[in-house]
Amino acid sequence: MTDFFGSLSKIKYEGPESDNPLAFHHYNPDEIVMGKSLKEHLRFAIAYWHSFAWEGGDPFGGRTFDRPWFGDEMSKAKLKADVAFELFDLLGAPYFCFHDVDVRPEGKNFAESLSNLNEIVDYFEEKMESSETKLLWGTANMFSNRRFMSGASTNPDPDVFAYAAATVKSCMDATHRLGGQNYVLWGGREGYETLLNTDIGQELDHMGRFLNMVVDYKHKIGFKGTILVEPKPQEPSKHQYDFDAATCIGFLRKYGLEGEVKLNLEQGHAILAGHSFEHEIAVATADNMLGSIDMNRNDYQSGWDTDQFPNNTPEVALAYYHILKSGGFTTGGTNFDAKLRRQSLDAEDLVAGHIGGMDICARGLKAAAAMLEDGGLEAALKERYADWDKDVNKDMLANGTLESISERVLKDDINPEPRSGKQEKLENLVNRFV
Amino acid sequence: MTDFFGSLSKIKYEGPESDNPLAFHHYNPDEIVMGKSLKEHLRFAIAYWHSFAWEGGDPFGGRTFDRPWFGDEMSKAKLKADVAFELFDLLGAPYFCFHDVDVRPEGKNFAESLSNLNEIVDYFEEKMESSETKLLWGTANMFSNRRFMSGASTNPDPDVFAYAAATVKSCMDATHRLGGQNYVLWGGREGYETLLNTDIGQELDHMGRFLNMVVDYKHKIGFKGTILVEPKPQEPSKHQYDFDAATCIGFLRKYGLEGEVKLNLEQGHAILAGHSFEHEIAVATADNMLGSIDMNRNDYQSGWDTDQFPNNTPEVALAYYHILKSGGFTTGGTNFDAKLRRQSLDAEDLVAGHIGGMDICARGLKAAAAMLEDGGLEAALKERYADWDKDVNKDMLANGTLESISERVLKDDINPEPRSGKQEKLENLVNRFV
Amino acid sequence: MTDFFGSLSKIKYEGPESDNPLAFHHYNPDEIVMGKSLKEHLRFAIAYWHSFAWEGGDPFGGRTFDRPWFGDEMSKAKLKADVAFELFDLLGAPYFCFHDVDVRPEGKNFAESLSNLNEIVDYFEEKMESSETKLLWGTANMFSNRRFMSGASTNPDPDVFAYAAATVKSCMDATHRLGGQNYVLWGGREGYETLLNTDIGQELDHMGRFLNMVVDYKHKIGFKGTILVEPKPQEPSKHQYDFDAATCIGFLRKYGLEGEVKLNLEQGHAILAGHSFEHEIAVATADNMLGSIDMNRNDYQSGWDTDQFPNNTPEVALAYYHILKSGGFTTGGTNFDAKLRRQSLDAEDLVAGHIGGMDICARGLKAAAAMLEDGGLEAALKERYADWDKDVNKDMLANGTLESISERVLKDDINPEPRSGKQEKLENLVNRFV
Amino acid sequence: MTDFFGSLSKIKYEGPESDNPLAFHHYNPDEIVMGKSLKEHLRFAIAYWHSFAWEGGDPFGGRTFDRPWFGDEMSKAKLKADVAFELFDLLGAPYFCFHDVDVRPEGKNFAESLSNLNEIVDYFEEKMESSETKLLWGTANMFSNRRFMSGASTNPDPDVFAYAAATVKSCMDATHRLGGQNYVLWGGREGYETLLNTDIGQELDHMGRFLNMVVDYKHKIGFKGTILVEPKPQEPSKHQYDFDAATCIGFLRKYGLEGEVKLNLEQGHAILAGHSFEHEIAVATADNMLGSIDMNRNDYQSGWDTDQFPNNTPEVALAYYHILKSGGFTTGGTNFDAKLRRQSLDAEDLVAGHIGGMDICARGLKAAAAMLEDGGLEAALKERYADWDKDVNKDMLANGTLESISERVLKDDINPEPRSGKQEKLENLVNRFV
Repeated sequence: MTDFFGSLSKIKYEGPESDNPLAFHHYNPDEIVMGKSLKEHLRFAIAYWHSFAWEGGDPFGGRTFDRPWFGDEMSKAKLKADVAFELFDLLGAPYFCFHDVDVRPEGKNFAESLSNLNEIVDYFEEKMESSETKLLWGTANMFSNRRFMSGASTNPDPDVFAYAAATVKSCMDATHRLGGQNYVLWGGREGYETLLNTDIGQELDHMGRFLNMVVDYKHKIGFKGTILVEPKPQEPSKHQYDFDAATCIGFLRKYGLEGEVKLNLEQGHAILAGHSFEHEIAVATADNMLGSIDMNRNDYQSGWDTDQFPNNTPEVALAYYHILKSGGFTTGGTNFDAKLRRQSLDAEDLVAGHIGGMDICARGLKAAAAMLEDGGLEAALKERYADWDKDVNKDMLANGTLESISERVLKDDINPEPRSGKQEKLENLVNRFV
Repeated sequence: MTDFFGSLSKIKYEGPESDNPLAFHHYNPDEIVMGKSLKEHLRFAIAYWHSFAWEGGDPFGGRTFDRPWFGDEMSKAKLKADVAFELFDLLGAPYFCFHDVDVRPEGKNFAESLSNLNEIVDYFEEKMESSETKLLWGTANMFSNRRFMSGASTNPDPDVFAYAAATVKSCMDATHRLGGQNYVLWGGREGYETLLNTDIGQELDHMGRFLNMVVDYKHKIGFKGTILVEPKPQEPSKHQYDFDAATCIGFLRKYGLEGEVKLNLEQGHAILAGHSFEHEIAVATADNMLGSIDMNRNDYQSGWDTDQFPNNTPEVALAYYHILKSGGFTTGGTNFDAKLRRQSLDAEDLVAGHIGGMDICARGLKAAAAMLEDGGLEAALKERYADWDKDVNKDMLANGTLESISERVLKDDINPEPRSGKQEKLENLVNRFV
Repeated sequence: MTDFFGSLSKIKYEGPESDNPLAFHHYNPDEIVMGKSLKEHLRFAIAYWHSFAWEGGDPFGGRTFDRPWFGDEMSKAKLKADVAFELFDLLGAPYFCFHDVDVRPEGKNFAESLSNLNEIVDYFEEKMESSETKLLWGTANMFSNRRFMSGASTNPDPDVFAYAAATVKSCMDATHRLGGQNYVLWGGREGYETLLNTDIGQELDHMGRFLNMVVDYKHKIGFKGTILVEPKPQEPSKHQYDFDAATCIGFLRKYGLEGEVKLNLEQGHAILAGHSFEHEIAVATADNMLGSIDMNRNDYQSGWDTDQFPNNTPEVALAYYHILKSGGFTTGGTNFDAKLRRQSLDAEDLVAGHIGGMDICARGLKAAAAMLEDGGLEAALKERYADWDKDVNKDMLANGTLESISERVLKDDINPEPRSGKQEKLENLVNRFV
Repeated sequence: MTDFFGSLSKIKYEGPESDNPLAFHHYNPDEIVMGKSLKEHLRFAIAYWHSFAWEGGDPFGGRTFDRPWFGDEMSKAKLKADVAFELFDLLGAPYFCFHDVDVRPEGKNFAESLSNLNEIVDYFEEKMESSETKLLWGTANMFSNRRFMSGASTNPDPDVFAYAAATVKSCMDATHRLGGQNYVLWGGREGYETLLNTDIGQELDHMGRFLNMVVDYKHKIGFKGTILVEPKPQEPSKHQYDFDAATCIGFLRKYGLEGEVKLNLEQGHAILAGHSFEHEIAVATADNMLGSIDMNRNDYQSGWDTDQFPNNTPEVALAYYHILKSGGFTTGGTNFDAKLRRQSLDAEDLVAGHIGGMDICARGLKAAAAMLEDGGLEAALKERYADWDKDVNKDMLANGTLESISERVLKDDINPEPRSGKQEKLENLVNRFV
């Protein structure tokens, strides 16, 4: 045991009335909701990067955190892993997620970075034998190192494309070895800073080809997890090709990948794209494309990705409502792509941030389940579209032409009166559960 | 002749040094640029709705304009048409665009509205015989009347779907009769106010089916123009399904329409979606989906669609740069979906707004042509991607796998150094032409 | 009794477990919280304009509602008043608010409009004798009529300034007669569309002078209520002078009004200005400038003022937390400047919207009171600033100079270590109460 | 001479037709406009931080630039200074600006940092003897080091307030020694991350007291320059107290500083606050509060401060129009708080960025001067407000009361008709000059 968390011991569920700030108030992992435990429903994952690799910097200031594992040596990387698994254990987190650069020192070239990665994967493998925490997904960080400044698979320099391909292979291998349930690609710099130096068509073709290589490799090695892409409209790039769920789905369809790749959706990215989180989820589930989620919130008054722990139950409840309605997670889960505020320096802050996020998600999911079990929302929805179940309307949709329909409008003098959309009543109904 | 424009006579090109506010300073319709006249390049169209039907209202106040043709009678509709064609003539506008409700009184039911429309189409037909102004596109307004408050083709009420089908048929017929070069569908209320009462999947299926009916009818009647949809992210709806170019293209591909339907792109809608206008154009041209444009600007400080006449040459130039680079307009053109500010009450304001817009577009197009003829931007772009023309890289893209590429990275110790993107130099180069 | 509300009877408190959608679930007016009833704490007011005058239009469509009182006749105005007081009674609303144009037909000139207003004020006076609903505030609508298109007190035309002065006098008289507890000025078109035709300095001077006239007249007639201005950054104007709380406070101070005028703050306006609602309240209370609130929410994905009923308890709770902390309302209250969605056509929607808003505010206020009574947040705040209570620091603040302080830093080698801001822990603490 | 700029030699003015990318095309420093040279009008300054200290990092990636002077040693700081003065000379820049941390290595405590600063100031002093470049302003960076993570003068820890006071004293001393013409304070972390741990009233009082100390010290040491504060609404903080020009002016008035402190306005910060740049300038000049400007642009599609070199002449022209109209700069100037894009790695990019910015500003200023000399805009403005010069209206403004004015409205039946605001015509007029 390291001494980073001092005397903190395993976080327990104490119920909503407890005033212990370091207990769960709503997340009782074994509580059964709609036939499954909260643990199985929510499938929480801890993000290695924000919780262990991020130093507290922002565009106007550097490191604020003071962690004993900061540094470039392999020994520091192992200390970091030790503390990480201690946090997983403290929280009873069923999963974690990582990028290659979070966990291993950067080498002087690809071979050395690969060797470093493999050494850490060995170390993880060993730790995971005695841990209850599994790997939700692995991924490659292809945006921080300066070699990727102009993109990875969309880089104008083919050598960077090659380097990216080798990198993804190494991370897929690592994920596969560690039993990961998904593999994620986030196209942080797959996009552009200025159209003046960018050929969108060519770059998209390269990105489509790259993703096909990823899918081929998945099948080659027998990886059973899901390949996920993660929409985000901008930041770091001015424009990112994976703008939002609809854009990604269109891209996947164009490159023949709609049956192979799903989406990892993030609340903060939805907000930056001008959507609500539940919108992105509904768009994905309407096309059977939901894979997993990053449940962190963005500040509505800030124009960048703030990656905060969620804290608003009504918002979280609507997200889980759409997830549960579509059947819940399969290989995916609830990752906290959330970082402490940079002023939250203490080990206790790190624990408290996660407790808060897990409690809010538990409240949200339980509220969502209650809404589904109540059935009022679904009944109202069904009623609103009920006329489409009539034969005349089914027939119109299936076989009508503008001419045949126009004739019917004239003959029957169809002159529809609007009907109330009842938004306020439905919002009130939601508020009975959140 | 009506007396609305008083003593104003045909607007002439007087060159940049003229201080006549009612002359063209840059738009010389017969000036030849890259082998075509400005008139043929720009293909300007006047929007009937903003210039003749809009009354100057906003969410906090009603009509400010005081036009002799406001009113519900057919005689007023004809007076409106008289003045409209006078403006077309004053400006030498080669095209105009209209919705059904702009030009005809609303009837008490569909049959009466149709009859009113047909009467006005007769009147237009007659006027167009002696006018040089042609129809760029027609469209149906399926968002203003309360029957469409919950959408047209996506309405939960099948009778509204039927009414919409009959309406579009009537507008396509009118457009066809008047020799329109395109037919546009803008999905103003095809979207939702709240997800709580909305089934996105079902609504999109209905919209896809509807658009297929439109395409079928086009072929049935032998309409040779292009069918266009118009992206907009929101307003009036909280979310509109035709969010942006990428979303629309994905939608068209899903419903098998990518070979049949193109896009009518608008600067203001691009801004609302978080894009630059040139971005939307570049996305469309990369997929051969550009149809036509609405060249009005949005105020960057306002969060709604302000539909102002364009007034910033550098911005307009970049839009035309991408249009010219893709070959220029075929059936499409430059529509001003622009309205006067509601304080601009005078007939002269209406003329001046259009003069300003046409001059700015002419400056922008000439600058764009100069950039293309200079070739510096294209040369820099070609150079940036030049390594992709090498055999090793062509082969990697065509035949590589993650494994084969990874082997090469390791064997050759590929370790790419980043290269300057030269954004400032390219921006400076643009500024030599705008 | 009119028959607008059909068989609906007085809305009752039935508690959180009731599944009656037309009952209060959280607003029990007589419940005592921190020594006062909820009714006295919240001081709810119904907005006449949104609930009775607004027709359901938006920039892309006209009237959707179908109310028997729509029309220009005095008899319609009285029918509207009858229904309004029926709603007040149904909801047990302690207050209402109105603009002149909401309640009376527009006359052909000022004299006739004034006479119409007075007739309605007589009618209100009569109705209020037998009603429990009082007037929270009155105001003048100086933005809808075309005469105000370029502003009221800031209009370049002095005759509009004069018309505005006469209008405000008439509305202050009406408010005074009806026992109003405040008088509000919202500067909807006090601002500009373009700087090109605007002299900001002169317009602000006129606005400052106008507001001084208002204050003088208040004292002249012995009106004991509070004069309030209402910040909003834009819409309808591109820029409004009363941008936000800080801007208004600066304006009031410049024109010597900081002791005479307070602020009416609105959630939606805060959002449009890039602030949270609690921010605006905290800015106002820090300067003792909070007067009253408009508790409606804005849609975070829409760039205009959506004026929706509040439905997010955690957000509402933070607003009331700052209000209660500053001592609660005196003459002010909680006005719903909220309108139904335009698809919510039914009388029941109108009732349900208000029930939902009142319930959410009651939950929010009770949560805020619980937070204050718990004391944890205040204790943490006090502790964070505790070092400022030490004598050395008090002395530094009161008497220090850059030189003297610099000497001390050097002499004592002051080298401060940062301390955790504990944001996540504080957010978790809030979530114990919401 | 270092070899950083290789063979580049002094940038010359070659006129608009030159195709030399490393020449000025519009900035001819000696060109006389409205009686002054462009050099004297524009008073360009190079920002030390972006051009020499910034490493190319963003929130998702680290250093991209590869500069020989990066490092913590004093020798590197001197090499950096050598290159900086070489760039000043290459560009013929009349001024530069700096923060303490840009120019000196951080010491282990205040005394050592101060000693480092003084050593560099000696070095600068020496270099400036043989350079034509002067100091426009100095400032203290009180936001990058972790000690300032919770603010400087508004920090809850009084020791940080003390450290900040000592720091500002040292930077004012340095600025004074180097003949600086202004001293700037930017409150990057004077604000909050969450209201939950913040006492706005107390923090503002501390900030007001601190600024009074600054003013006192200025007078004490006989510094003749102007003290400037710099508005920015957010970033790095969620909310910054110096939100925008109006907020700062209100703050200065509250703390009795309106005669002592002026504003340093930045285009990018204006955009983040929801304003145009010319708006912020017009607000400042209306109150005689304009000090200096940071002429960098923000990307309209990005929600953070992108600090790009300006490249849009029409926008820049409107900014200078308001500056020239108010009399032009006195102690202030045009600082480029602009950084290269992080992909612009080459020394030539650094030079090209500045050339582009200087050219655009020269074009903008010349256009602004032409607009003023033309007089059309001013004449239209004067005419719009002309009725306020009539005696009856002057008297109303000076002596009117709501009662007296209301009487006149009734007696004279004042019923104003709206007049056109002519926005499009004015925009067209502007476009004759840009």
